[in-house]
Amino acid sequence: MDFIKKLRNKWKEGKFVCVGLDSEYEKIPPHIKGKDKIFEFNKAIIDSTHDLVLAYKPNSAFYEALGTVGIEQLKKTFDYLTKKYADIPIILDVKRADIGNTNEGYVKFAFEYLKADAITVHPYLGEDALGPFLNRKDKGIIVLCKTSNEGSSEFQNYKDLYLKVAENVATKWNKNGNCALVVGATYPEELKKVRKEIADMPILIPGIGAQGGDLKNTIKNGLNSKKEGVIISSSRGIIYASSGEDFAQKAREEVEKLNDEIHKTLQ
Amino acid sequence: MDFIKKLRNKWKEGKFVCVGLDSEYEKIPPHIKGKDKIFEFNKAIIDSTHDLVLAYKPNSAFYEALGTVGIEQLKKTFDYLTKKYADIPIILDVKRADIGNTNEGYVKFAFEYLKADAITVHPYLGEDALGPFLNRKDKGIIVLCKTSNEGSSEFQNYKDLYLKVAENVATKWNKNGNCALVVGATYPEELKKVRKEIADMPILIPGIGAQGGDLKNTIKNGLNSKKEGVIISSSRGIIYASSGEDFAQKAREEVEKLNDEIHKTLQ
Repeated sequence: MDFIKKLRNKWKEGKFVCVGLDSEYEKIPPHIKGKDKIFEFNKAIIDSTHDLVLAYKPNSAFYEALGTVGIEQLKKTFDYLTKKYADIPIILDVKRADIGNTNEGYVKFAFEYLKADAITVHPYLGEDALGPFLNRKDKGIIVLCKTSNEGSSEFQNYKDLYLKVAENVATKWNKNGNCALVVGATYPEELKKVRKEIADMPILIPGIGAQGGDLKNTIKNGLNSKKEGVIISSSRGIIYASSGEDFAQKAREEVEKLNDEIHKTLQ
Repeated sequence: MDFIKKLRNKWKEGKFVCVGLDSEYEKIPPHIKGKDKIFEFNKAIIDSTHDLVLAYKPNSAFYEALGTVGIEQLKKTFDYLTKKYADIPIILDVKRADIGNTNEGYVKFAFEYLKADAITVHPYLGEDALGPFLNRKDKGIIVLCKTSNEGSSEFQNYKDLYLKVAENVATKWNKNGNCALVVGATYPEELKKVRKEIADMPILIPGIGAQGGDLKNTIKNGLNSKKEGVIISSSRGIIYASSGEDFAQKAREEVEKLNDEIHKTLQ
């Protein structure tokens, strides 16, 4: 099943929360031991939250930090998810982009080796360079538009570049209907303008919680005409809710809390 | 020794060619066999060219395509280079960039695990996000400015964004004197403007050879006031010069040829 279809099924079930598996070796609760501790941590979080979530989003940086050992933990996490919970879309957050053919290597890593449903990419090189990603009709190509960090205005708001990115992705790049954008919850006004520009295309929205984004404005400005189209991403606030043996249960409670808040806003 | 110093030593020896180790599994000459065939291929190219080159630049995408197996070959290549040829700077071409803390994972991958001397990064997220890279005074942070691909104008020439990137990197990001830019040889006019904007900062220049960039204009427009400051990068034209048993010797001949052409232009 393709990425967009998987998302729609989950939205219909009222699910909007994407759990970021930003699993740092140093932050794994101390009672989890052994060489597969990152995978065991992820597995426990997944088993405890799978019936509540819209998507999972492992960020590759935390795994690459450990070299081959980390990539192995990432692979085990993907294998577990694709086998046991094939209906849940997995977004590989790697923020890649190179020129033309070189991207084939990243396409293989994301879609053949890991079997991700979607990938995050930088827009800077333009549509032609990103062809190897965009041509994958079945996969979600999620393009950075307005990122959640404080200094994102340096280039993204230079002559409204972020809106130019939104416009081009919506009107040119999205021939296969497989594109989405990243807009941080920390910029509700930009989110509103982007939503106007891109009709019903999905938006991945980080920046709720630890980074201080306001949920109510995010939902109001981010939803599309079908009252869906948003992927509300939270990582640290969920996966590190507790560093004790109850971490997986606490993670579930955080997802439930966020879900409840979203549903209150939707009413 | 830091990246900039290593480069300067090589420039003083009249070396300007950076060999891109874009080593694709499918393109390794058939007589090289076994599980370490990518490393063995790289090793032969390195041993045959080390006394002629300015730098080596493995592109991570070709290794990531194979998952942990590929990362292991990349690691072996770095280990070999850092032990045997410690004076030659190694640029990890990964084109990364995430927000703040997340970049620490990529910093660990590049500078602790692989021990690269420099890394390529996307500018889109801005200076604050790239702090973990920029703070590494000893390492080269090479920022994409004007890339060599045909469609790079889509955003990079939108209101002269590439010049804004060049200006900000030169006047704000370069506090540690460790920044450089990527400008494709396929855009000689942009290269000229960028050089004017950034004084003596190094420029990594791909796009010579297979992509059709003109060497004479590239050298004329790219050199800094010290008649150095350019990293002329070539990959396929060198490493795949022959698919026979003479591939390493042919690679050497291609580096020599490119070196000679550069020196003719310098006179």
